[in-house]
Amino acid sequence: MARNPRHDILFEPVVVGPKVAKNRFWQVPQCNGSGSEKPGMQAAHREVKADGGWAVIFTESCAITPDADQMPAGVTARIWDDDDVHNLSLMTARVHEYGALAGIELKHGGSLAQNAESRYPARGISQVQNDLRPMSTPHEMSLEDIAQLRRDYVAAAERSRRAGFDLISIYAGVAALPAYFLYPFYNKRTDIYGGSFENRLRLMREIVEDIKAAVPDVGLGLRFAIDTLDAPYGYGDKGIRADGEGIKVIEALDEKVDFWDINVGSVNWGEDAAASRFKETNHEAQYTRIAKTVATKPVVNVGRFTDPDVMSEAIRSGQCDFIGGARPAIADPFIPVKIEEGRPDEIRECIGCNVCISRWESGPAPIWCTQNATAGEEYRRGWHPERFITARNSDSLVLVVGAGPAGMECATVLAKRGYSGVHLVDGSDKLGGHLNWVKQLPGLGQWGRVTDYRHVQIDKLDNLEFVPNLEMTAEQALEYGADYVVFATGSTWSRDGLNGVTQEPIPGWDLGTVLTPEDIMVGGITSAGEDVVVYDTDGYFMGVSIAEFLALQGKKVTYLTPLDTMAPYMRKTLEEQRMHQRLQSLGVRIVTQTALDRIDEGHVAVRNTWTGVQEQLAAAAVVPVTQRVSSDALYRQAEQLHAAEFSEVKGLYLVGDAYAPGMLAQTIFQAHRLAREFDTDNPAVPLPYIRERQLADHANYRFAQPLGMPRVVTHSG
Amino acid sequence: MARNPRHDILFEPVVVGPKVAKNRFWQVPQCNGSGSEKPGMQAAHREVKADGGWAVIFTESCAITPDADQMPAGVTARIWDDDDVHNLSLMTARVHEYGALAGIELKHGGSLAQNAESRYPARGISQVQNDLRPMSTPHEMSLEDIAQLRRDYVAAAERSRRAGFDLISIYAGVAALPAYFLYPFYNKRTDIYGGSFENRLRLMREIVEDIKAAVPDVGLGLRFAIDTLDAPYGYGDKGIRADGEGIKVIEALDEKVDFWDINVGSVNWGEDAAASRFKETNHEAQYTRIAKTVATKPVVNVGRFTDPDVMSEAIRSGQCDFIGGARPAIADPFIPVKIEEGRPDEIRECIGCNVCISRWESGPAPIWCTQNATAGEEYRRGWHPERFITARNSDSLVLVVGAGPAGMECATVLAKRGYSGVHLVDGSDKLGGHLNWVKQLPGLGQWGRVTDYRHVQIDKLDNLEFVPNLEMTAEQALEYGADYVVFATGSTWSRDGLNGVTQEPIPGWDLGTVLTPEDIMVGGITSAGEDVVVYDTDGYFMGVSIAEFLALQGKKVTYLTPLDTMAPYMRKTLEEQRMHQRLQSLGVRIVTQTALDRIDEGHVAVRNTWTGVQEQLAAAAVVPVTQRVSSDALYRQAEQLHAAEFSEVKGLYLVGDAYAPGMLAQTIFQAHRLAREFDTDNPAVPLPYIRERQLADHANYRFAQPLGMPRVVTHSG
Repeated sequence: MARNPRHDILFEPVVVGPKVAKNRFWQVPQCNGSGSEKPGMQAAHREVKADGGWAVIFTESCAITPDADQMPAGVTARIWDDDDVHNLSLMTARVHEYGALAGIELKHGGSLAQNAESRYPARGISQVQNDLRPMSTPHEMSLEDIAQLRRDYVAAAERSRRAGFDLISIYAGVAALPAYFLYPFYNKRTDIYGGSFENRLRLMREIVEDIKAAVPDVGLGLRFAIDTLDAPYGYGDKGIRADGEGIKVIEALDEKVDFWDINVGSVNWGEDAAASRFKETNHEAQYTRIAKTVATKPVVNVGRFTDPDVMSEAIRSGQCDFIGGARPAIADPFIPVKIEEGRPDEIRECIGCNVCISRWESGPAPIWCTQNATAGEEYRRGWHPERFITARNSDSLVLVVGAGPAGMECATVLAKRGYSGVHLVDGSDKLGGHLNWVKQLPGLGQWGRVTDYRHVQIDKLDNLEFVPNLEMTAEQALEYGADYVVFATGSTWSRDGLNGVTQEPIPGWDLGTVLTPEDIMVGGITSAGEDVVVYDTDGYFMGVSIAEFLALQGKKVTYLTPLDTMAPYMRKTLEEQRMHQRLQSLGVRIVTQTALDRIDEGHVAVRNTWTGVQEQLAAAAVVPVTQRVSSDALYRQAEQLHAAEFSEVKGLYLVGDAYAPGMLAQTIFQAHRLAREFDTDNPAVPLPYIRERQLADHANYRFAQPLGMPRVVTHSG
Repeated sequence: MARNPRHDILFEPVVVGPKVAKNRFWQVPQCNGSGSEKPGMQAAHREVKADGGWAVIFTESCAITPDADQMPAGVTARIWDDDDVHNLSLMTARVHEYGALAGIELKHGGSLAQNAESRYPARGISQVQNDLRPMSTPHEMSLEDIAQLRRDYVAAAERSRRAGFDLISIYAGVAALPAYFLYPFYNKRTDIYGGSFENRLRLMREIVEDIKAAVPDVGLGLRFAIDTLDAPYGYGDKGIRADGEGIKVIEALDEKVDFWDINVGSVNWGEDAAASRFKETNHEAQYTRIAKTVATKPVVNVGRFTDPDVMSEAIRSGQCDFIGGARPAIADPFIPVKIEEGRPDEIRECIGCNVCISRWESGPAPIWCTQNATAGEEYRRGWHPERFITARNSDSLVLVVGAGPAGMECATVLAKRGYSGVHLVDGSDKLGGHLNWVKQLPGLGQWGRVTDYRHVQIDKLDNLEFVPNLEMTAEQALEYGADYVVFATGSTWSRDGLNGVTQEPIPGWDLGTVLTPEDIMVGGITSAGEDVVVYDTDGYFMGVSIAEFLALQGKKVTYLTPLDTMAPYMRKTLEEQRMHQRLQSLGVRIVTQTALDRIDEGHVAVRNTWTGVQEQLAAAAVVPVTQRVSSDALYRQAEQLHAAEFSEVKGLYLVGDAYAPGMLAQTIFQAHRLAREFDTDNPAVPLPYIRERQLADHANYRFAQPLGMPRVVTHSG
């Protein structure tokens, strides 16, 4: 099918300074955990987007010098030296193969850099403690230090050019030095870099001018946060506003740059990369569209764009010239190709769960994506999001029991690998499994896209059949006639409050006042009384979501957790601050660092985890959100029967939450992997493992000082 | 000088199964951040200990399979495959050069493994949420899974042997599967691996037997926690006790092993690797000495041993056969040589600050050591703790102003590099700078060892002179006659409460009720009133230490912090739990997630960081422990004078806290580095940077599926 003419505008070429982008799809800087140290992963993760039709493909932010070393924060790339040039040039070479432009984002984070690996002291705008890293107090840069910093930026730009990058973006937002200098919140200087707008802009202007002079044949732009938002989400009066100094920056520098990559926000970057729970697609437009009122150079906007109509309208309305994508391009690297080929219904839309970001926020962890199990696996496992090798045993019939996330993923990938028949059966009348109730939780509607995408695929795959309303026994599964049976039967939240703190159930769980998340969301059961205690030892979205759901129903909710903070994993998904506000506005009481000892009629006994001080809380009902328990009984029965009498079935597999309850991204990944390896000797065994790694160079090992050196002479010697 | 005969016993060879250790010094498993991925760093960090006389040198714990992947927790080595064999064999080759034995510790952490890189689901003893990683709920191992686990251990042992290891230690403590199986706290199984002691010991016994049969020529032992201590620090009745099941394990397995590496503790490993604040040297002896009442094989004990008399007595008294060392061997790899050469006064004693551990607990960060700046730098920077290259400009006189940690370190290293004269001057009458009052804080007495070691060195170095009681002006420093002047003038705690949260001072700081840590500890000033608020935005030891100090003086102390928890960095140094108990026992009120808005007469205004709810706290005095401010005025004056008139001085340097206030380990490191690079073109500039890194193999880059593969066929195509 040809593309819809309504979307033609997305495929117009655009001049970017000395370069030309072949269309309007621009993968903005985005971390993936590879940095410069896993060059194969870096290159392949970017290449697959070039393959998918993106015209411009950026690295993540790259530290320009060793004293901009972010370790132990998440891995970002580095453009410190010639080794980095060598490694990143693998990415540019691969991206160029597809006629795409390769971009690099240059960053110096000032006092945000913890320099755990390089061990250099941080340089900062002033000697004030970093607001995110309290133990980082930098050296206040002298004028000479600033002159050196400018030379460092130029040297990094020259290395970038040598690595083959077509575009350079200077990071001027979220804790990068040009932004620290611009915002009055951070800029306390009294010299030519402090005070007036012109003075605060000086560093940014100088870096732009210096780099443009040094590498004029590279397209140069700024990733610029045009508005730093209201307090408490941003800097309020101490930051910049789009219609104030934001637009003044664009006026001042427009003639010097080749493009503008515009977003919003502060060091609290959840207001930019917002979870779908809190922000709609294109939510930044109210601020970012102001850029084009003065910019004469192409403007990039982000907005978690997944809908080609919204994209086309953003261009047509004059909001922006490029559709920037980070999360959408991770979830589906082939968005441009799918629009171009007239099959936008096949776009695997980002659900806005921010698990990708959470992995970066977890330190050295590589990227995960809930929707796209191949993200980060392009190189080491050789997985391509849209191409599948026909299985060696493709003349088989595979039965997949359970049409939740794991079952849907496994079945579709098996079908794409050409199995002659894949039957996906479920006891209910629809696809989705537990997602059907999870997406009913407040704010999680877009999580339903996990089902939506797979629903479309299942409809289109001739060799895949969904069989609803079929609750199977183990015997029926074995007698079905399949060569292989996959059990993807999910998990349920523990009813007895089994938890890691005590490694046991919670005494009193059987009193009848205990409700599970499923009781509430599927069973529609609500407690008789008003006071409900939600006890969260899990620390992710379920505890707070249930608390919110019950509060919206008028219950008086206490959210109780032994953990340090409310739902600590939501700090990593950038949802923490707004979730606090949400629960607070609903009157939910938050009690942290407090464990649940016992459930009694009408109340619970709790204990402060540090002081041991005990107290009672009123509780007509208790909802333990402690851990999930695999629903693997069917598999276990089948395993026994199989050994005894059904040996014509060649293989039984247990996958997803039914094997071990995990995050949604992990559940889908496990199912994907099983399908990718279904024709190997034993796909259920977690070996072999492929990783990028360095091998020791035994011959060139150099140790300390030359061995002929004498020990230091001492008087006692 | 010859060694003291009293210490002869430490140098007796000891048979360890099929191997012989040349003396009784045993470097127990200890992380350094290199893992298997930075093989040069791993090898050199171990080699320097072999060079320093240790007879046995272990890796850190090594994950045996990809599903024992600990990422994103701290880096540990891996013995997953032949690449690991290749990389770790660099370490064994280097260790063997010195006649030492190389050991490897094999670990599978069960559900502790987060598998962020490998992405495998965790296997565990039961499907119960991990107590440290709440979002990790494992697959409960079937009997078949356990059989596979045993094969995995054997395969890892075989790889270890191929890598050249002489000794294998099976990790049987702190969240390793053999321990999970042994402790009733975790073991809920009802099959042959659960219930009775014999059943709970079964896995440990099987692994020992399997490995011994597979690699009989390797010395095999267990790192075994003989006592899991009382609650709340350990498992109480649900763990094991030394005189109960602890000693029964030794009875059961003694004939099957070649050595015992005995310690104590639980997953809360601060009770083993305890900070000096809470535990004396050899504090585990009361438990660990019980092992030798039944063990016939050599027994290793740890105890942060730095005193050869204590070591000799531990051997002589029958407590143990080997002096195990982790932290002491990091602080001084040359302990055995120094004892052997009769200069134990030169041992650079571990101060028990646990910064080494804190780096591991910070994720991918490489090791730091407060006392030994060369730890972790042996390979990439080529630093040897005891050898120094004579400087190219060694015919110079260097003046070092300020005899705190940075000044002492810089001066001693310069002297060891052969400078004709190094003068270390200080305004006070003694060495140590701010350490002289920091070591007066409750529990920090051993931090004085930083000064003690350097004091001994300074006394022994002919070319280094300490000049006390000389408060210099900038002019005097420049007129001193030195070729180079180094300013190491330290920092002070901010008087005005300058802090990262607001990037500003705290309103009301000038009311006269504000005391700094120095006011209290140096000035001896105490507030008139009873109520004192200590406001901590730093998050490490100072805030809680001042709170403890004041509480011991009878003040009514509120410890206030905007951070999530009390002194969060002390979680990383394993001091959190006991510090909570300490402050609680002194009646200190802990208020977290609460910021200080304003200081008024008699009270302060505070605000919950999440809810914004404001309240007042009584405060006769406020102690801001927010950030430090560099004392760099002297350097700045000297810099101006130098440019104008003192050009015969060839170089001025600013180093340590005077450049940027940092952790003690960083301050000393910066000073060490300046001295090591003093004869390079510009040692003050943070380049060039050396790291171990992988270069992209452009030729062998492989991408996804073969490019000839068709896209998946869909109906829309």
